[in-house]
Amino acid sequence: MKNKNIQKGFSKLPVSEKRKIAASLCDDAAAAINQMESFLHPVPEVQQVLEGLSENTISNYPLPYNVAPNFIINGTTYMVPMVIEESSVVAAASSAARFWASRGGFHAHVKNNKKAGQLHFLYRGDINKLRTAMPGIEEFLRRYAKPVTQNMEKRGGGILTITLKHRPEVWDHYCQLHVEFDTKDAMGANFINSCLEEFSEGMKSYLRATAGFNENDYEPLMAILSNYNDQCIVHVNVSSPLELLEEATKELSAEDFVRRFIMAVHIAGSDVSRATTHNKGIMNGVDAVILATGNDFRAIEAGAHAYAARSGQYRSLSTATVEDGIFTFSLDMPMALGTTGGLTRLHPMASRSLQILGNPSAEDLMMIAGAAGLANNFAAVKSLTTTGIQAGHMRMHLSNITMQLKATQEETQKIKDHFAGQKVSYQAVAAYLDQLRNNQDS
Amino acid sequence: MKNKNIQKGFSKLPVSEKRKIAASLCDDAAAAINQMESFLHPVPEVQQVLEGLSENTISNYPLPYNVAPNFIINGTTYMVPMVIEESSVVAAASSAARFWASRGGFHAHVKNNKKAGQLHFLYRGDINKLRTAMPGIEEFLRRYAKPVTQNMEKRGGGILTITLKHRPEVWDHYCQLHVEFDTKDAMGANFINSCLEEFSEGMKSYLRATAGFNENDYEPLMAILSNYNDQCIVHVNVSSPLELLEEATKELSAEDFVRRFIMAVHIAGSDVSRATTHNKGIMNGVDAVILATGNDFRAIEAGAHAYAARSGQYRSLSTATVEDGIFTFSLDMPMALGTTGGLTRLHPMASRSLQILGNPSAEDLMMIAGAAGLANNFAAVKSLTTTGIQAGHMRMHLSNITMQLKATQEETQKIKDHFAGQKVSYQAVAAYLDQLRNNQDS
Repeated sequence: MKNKNIQKGFSKLPVSEKRKIAASLCDDAAAAINQMESFLHPVPEVQQVLEGLSENTISNYPLPYNVAPNFIINGTTYMVPMVIEESSVVAAASSAARFWASRGGFHAHVKNNKKAGQLHFLYRGDINKLRTAMPGIEEFLRRYAKPVTQNMEKRGGGILTITLKHRPEVWDHYCQLHVEFDTKDAMGANFINSCLEEFSEGMKSYLRATAGFNENDYEPLMAILSNYNDQCIVHVNVSSPLELLEEATKELSAEDFVRRFIMAVHIAGSDVSRATTHNKGIMNGVDAVILATGNDFRAIEAGAHAYAARSGQYRSLSTATVEDGIFTFSLDMPMALGTTGGLTRLHPMASRSLQILGNPSAEDLMMIAGAAGLANNFAAVKSLTTTGIQAGHMRMHLSNITMQLKATQEETQKIKDHFAGQKVSYQAVAAYLDQLRNNQDS
Repeated sequence: MKNKNIQKGFSKLPVSEKRKIAASLCDDAAAAINQMESFLHPVPEVQQVLEGLSENTISNYPLPYNVAPNFIINGTTYMVPMVIEESSVVAAASSAARFWASRGGFHAHVKNNKKAGQLHFLYRGDINKLRTAMPGIEEFLRRYAKPVTQNMEKRGGGILTITLKHRPEVWDHYCQLHVEFDTKDAMGANFINSCLEEFSEGMKSYLRATAGFNENDYEPLMAILSNYNDQCIVHVNVSSPLELLEEATKELSAEDFVRRFIMAVHIAGSDVSRATTHNKGIMNGVDAVILATGNDFRAIEAGAHAYAARSGQYRSLSTATVEDGIFTFSLDMPMALGTTGGLTRLHPMASRSLQILGNPSAEDLMMIAGAAGLANNFAAVKSLTTTGIQAGHMRMHLSNITMQLKATQEETQKIKDHFAGQKVSYQAVAAYLDQLRNNQDS
């Protein structure tokens, strides 16, 4: 049994010591240390930046850094950096981008770009009196939070609206201030949280210092941003007359292709089991851009899926229609992200991604990530409704299998040739490789 | 204006050529190439594995590989690998794990571990006749899919149930076969998709060859796994008598701490804006383990958030109660993952993670990732309801800020000392650093 005892003071140990302890849990401890070290960046200053991002960092975990060319969005051509480990995502995005490039590209706009946060509290006093006082309270809070907001205001952002909500059905005396923010090109998490914490203190000050109120009626509970960004929505669509879709697939006429495509998207709008995977396919593209640009994919994921459930049923984020002979495929989803602050400039490859994209504003990046999401969704639904997902997927996956089987380059080529027109499965490839090797031996 | 023209045949170019084209979009093209190359793994065979995972790979994107020690789960101590770029996640997980280690640790079990998939199709014939024939159809399909299922069956898994659903309210003639699978220690995406594609062909064969049916009544639409894994649920909880929670915080009595904690979790069960962020905090921990073990975080995210909306309102995935003086904090969530297949053994650091975890089964890993989720949720709610999220968060974020400001080690130490008891903001740190540097100059 390996040493899995409780570690005291672990976080204070030098990195090399932490690495040694983690490696000691492996059968090949010495090799484990070498391996972890092999993934470090050769320049100590760069490695220090990476280690500074987290805690108890003992190595780096590399994800493939890829680019999908030929994304035309509102007339501008982008090469989109995508960080993703799933074999078919970049190929699918690239292929959809190229397909739409000759059909007008992606059309996108930002519907709105407001972030939100909440101060949750109990108020045991007269709620009507508090409500009546709100204009004065709001003015007080805005002044109170000035030290936190003034820099954001210089950049044109700041606090937008402050709304008092009283919801005793949730909990006795439960209230919240629901606050909207403009955080410009920043995702704004730290700004929003700091503002809300100032508000929490400010409320107390106001109630203490204002005649007719008692600070003891107020119990602050939590002050934090919300990732439910239903007021921070990007719209992306692709659109084409049916006659330009004749070449969309080998198998189907444009009409049949569009009929089946629309039906598939409609089913994802009605069936939760299908909707979940449909939206997962959108997020394959979105998250790859989010990761590549140093944004927080958990935030985007949570916001997107909660938004997909806003009607009371979890549904597809995309819709497809045909009207007057024009096929349109659209995506509307929350996309609260930044191109300044956080990791966006700090992580060397995130910063590089922003340069490859021509240093986009946050709104530009919302459209780019949205386009990547729609592209992946288009490619997935197209595959599903025509050749099936496995044909392309397993072809991409074939190289994973050959690596797992430790096939030589020569063997890999033979395997690829053999499986060009055939069904791929791990078992089939393993069997074929066995056969290759046995033939060689004999 | 940079060259952003349409790239023809991009995917066929050598990696170095692709890298050059991407770099040409940057102001410092030569430096960009050097930088991208600097992130490659020094051993060509290892780099080849990473590049084989995706398409158009031109570099690696390193995420910090971290460990959180002291996770006791069902009596076993784990050091949990977490791949995450957000500064407070590993620290929060470690601190919650240590806190609960002295209070019995995490209790976890897998409620069920079934995966699902769907064959979507139109059936224009007599649906009642089809329904009546289902036992025979099912037997036929199971035999038809044997070449795909036999290996999984050897490992004890395979097809579980096959259910015909007729849903004409979604689309005229729309039906699906909803199929449940046991995929043992594999996530099983390829297996499930391959099975369902066999079913799609199998249906056609059955209808062609069986008297009274007509294959032309059948139009297959899509065959694909579902990420809505409501039959693949892990439960994790922590539990403690109130008297052992006196030291939970400096500020509050155990009773007050628990009252506020439960209220906060309850609000996340009622308010979508709060629920989204609450669940995002759970996913911070879950995804870090998912990434570290080579699983697919988009799949887990989609499944988790869609499940959070199953009641018709999007709610918290965790619940907190106090009964008979015992505080219990629980998490129930879908967690469809694998410890074999996919990237789990292929990515060298994913494989390393599984070794550090003692080569867990898929069910073990479900519990470990769930525990990381609950730990991060506990730490976040605890911070929010006591000191506020920003105190800890900004302290962690302080090193990001000092890096951004390119503070020397000496300056960083002075900054850390100065801000030990103070509010941290980018502006405040920048101002203090200016002051430090000006004093030095004078």
